Amino acid sequence: MQRLRLDVAYDGGEFSGWATQPGLRTVQGELELALARVLRLEPSAVALTCAGRTDAGVHARGQVAHVDLPDAVGPPELRRRLASALPADVRVRSVAVAPGGFDARFSAAWRRYVYRLTDDPAGADPLARRHVLTWKRRLDCGLMVQAAGHLLGEHDFAAYCRKREGATTIRTLLRLDVEERPDGIETTVMADAFCHSMVRALMGALLAVGDGRLPPDEPARILATGVRDQRVTVLPARGLTLEEVGYPEDAQLGTRARQARTLRKLPESQA
Amino acid sequence: MQRLRLDVAYDGGEFSGWATQPGLRTVQGELELALARVLRLEPSAVALTCAGRTDAGVHARGQVAHVDLPDAVGPPELRRRLASALPADVRVRSVAVAPGGFDARFSAAWRRYVYRLTDDPAGADPLARRHVLTWKRRLDCGLMVQAAGHLLGEHDFAAYCRKREGATTIRTLLRLDVEERPDGIETTVMADAFCHSMVRALMGALLAVGDGRLPPDEPARILATGVRDQRVTVLPARGLTLEEVGYPEDAQLGTRARQARTLRKLPESQA
Repeated sequence: MQRLRLDVAYDGGEFSGWATQPGLRTVQGELELALARVLRLEPSAVALTCAGRTDAGVHARGQVAHVDLPDAVGPPELRRRLASALPADVRVRSVAVAPGGFDARFSAAWRRYVYRLTDDPAGADPLARRHVLTWKRRLDCGLMVQAAGHLLGEHDFAAYCRKREGATTIRTLLRLDVEERPDGIETTVMADAFCHSMVRALMGALLAVGDGRLPPDEPARILATGVRDQRVTVLPARGLTLEEVGYPEDAQLGTRARQARTLRKLPESQA
Repeated sequence: MQRLRLDVAYDGGEFSGWATQPGLRTVQGELELALARVLRLEPSAVALTCAGRTDAGVHARGQVAHVDLPDAVGPPELRRRLASALPADVRVRSVAVAPGGFDARFSAAWRRYVYRLTDDPAGADPLARRHVLTWKRRLDCGLMVQAAGHLLGEHDFAAYCRKREGATTIRTLLRLDVEERPDGIETTVMADAFCHSMVRALMGALLAVGDGRLPPDEPARILATGVRDQRVTVLPARGLTLEEVGYPEDAQLGTRARQARTLRKLPESQA
């Protein structure tokens, strides 16, 4: 057996998210099925683990997954076979033998997402409309940049997460960059990890500032309350793409994985 | 009545081309229907003329059309109404009162298309796959650049056109730039005008050079024969996008339109 690292891209529009669900078309499901088929294995013998379990409709250009497989087929040949076996809306961009200690989920040091939208009254470019949201109200990017600045750093993001029992909502937000471009507004959101619906809730807060419903310091105030606020909507999945996952140097992969498995607390709550 | 200029973008994937055809979904058909609906006119009272009558499956970001309409509704209001009335795969990016002498087709000085493709064995980025062709053989961009250089200028492009009775196939090819980019190969094709299937036949010749089936000077030799060559295939519409149409200064619009309506001959054939 050997552990392989797969770099994966997909158009999330016709998937019910990453994670396998009975009776639904999922990215994990399609990939495991294709791997089993091209390697002539039982589907139950193929189990993928990914860095970011994207929701229904969320896209990826830089998803990373690992899988443990018999080493009968080399990575280049496996990549070729997967290119033929997979549907056009999911692609395996590269296959490589993973370094020792590598775990696609727990070794990851950070995830970088981009949320794309336009406030052009004519709507999104038809060729990009499947991954760019059309926002019906005019947006002030300067206000969004201000609001974003107050959210960076290590915080308990409970106000921007769907809470799961026993799981921490403490995260370190490394980047939240709002950029106005000729074809719309791109927001880069990078953190060590994300809790469920966090990127889309943060985007909902930024847009409420951008279109004048909230003052620029309100998203940070909501963050400090630690409870969800009904003025913050979770934006649609359509505009969200997982662009990149970062890993430490090979020698640090195991250490990083052990850290990430440990339940995290804010310094002041460790007393 | 006033003449309006419409700048139009569309995803050609689900259209049977620009031009209205009975029983088929076309860009012109959708636009004329939407205009008639939002202005409460008879559909037969609305007739669009465009700069580039794109084939089935060809996309546009910079198509230009004109239409003569009663001046009851101002351009900004008309643009707003069209944004609501049109399906997401066709957008009217701007509406403006056309300058005197403007004709979307005959006043145009040049058209710029881009053909996008990838030779990555993993296939096209899923988010771009609807307007980027996947080519199964490896391509040498340097050879394609060489071949392109021999095709520039004014020529009879009969070898790269589907001939129409009584119509000239003489065109001036202004740019044919092959550019290797991180996400694939982009070829910019710009000419005063194009005859039918010309961009896709030129691309077929360049790819035959790029993947080693033809030497780099062969496309120019085929051009000189003036007859179609079976080694040159017409590439699929999927990769082709009309990006921009250029017009002369307002004062020259009428003159340009009169020139363009005149049947063109190569200098040496005017004797």
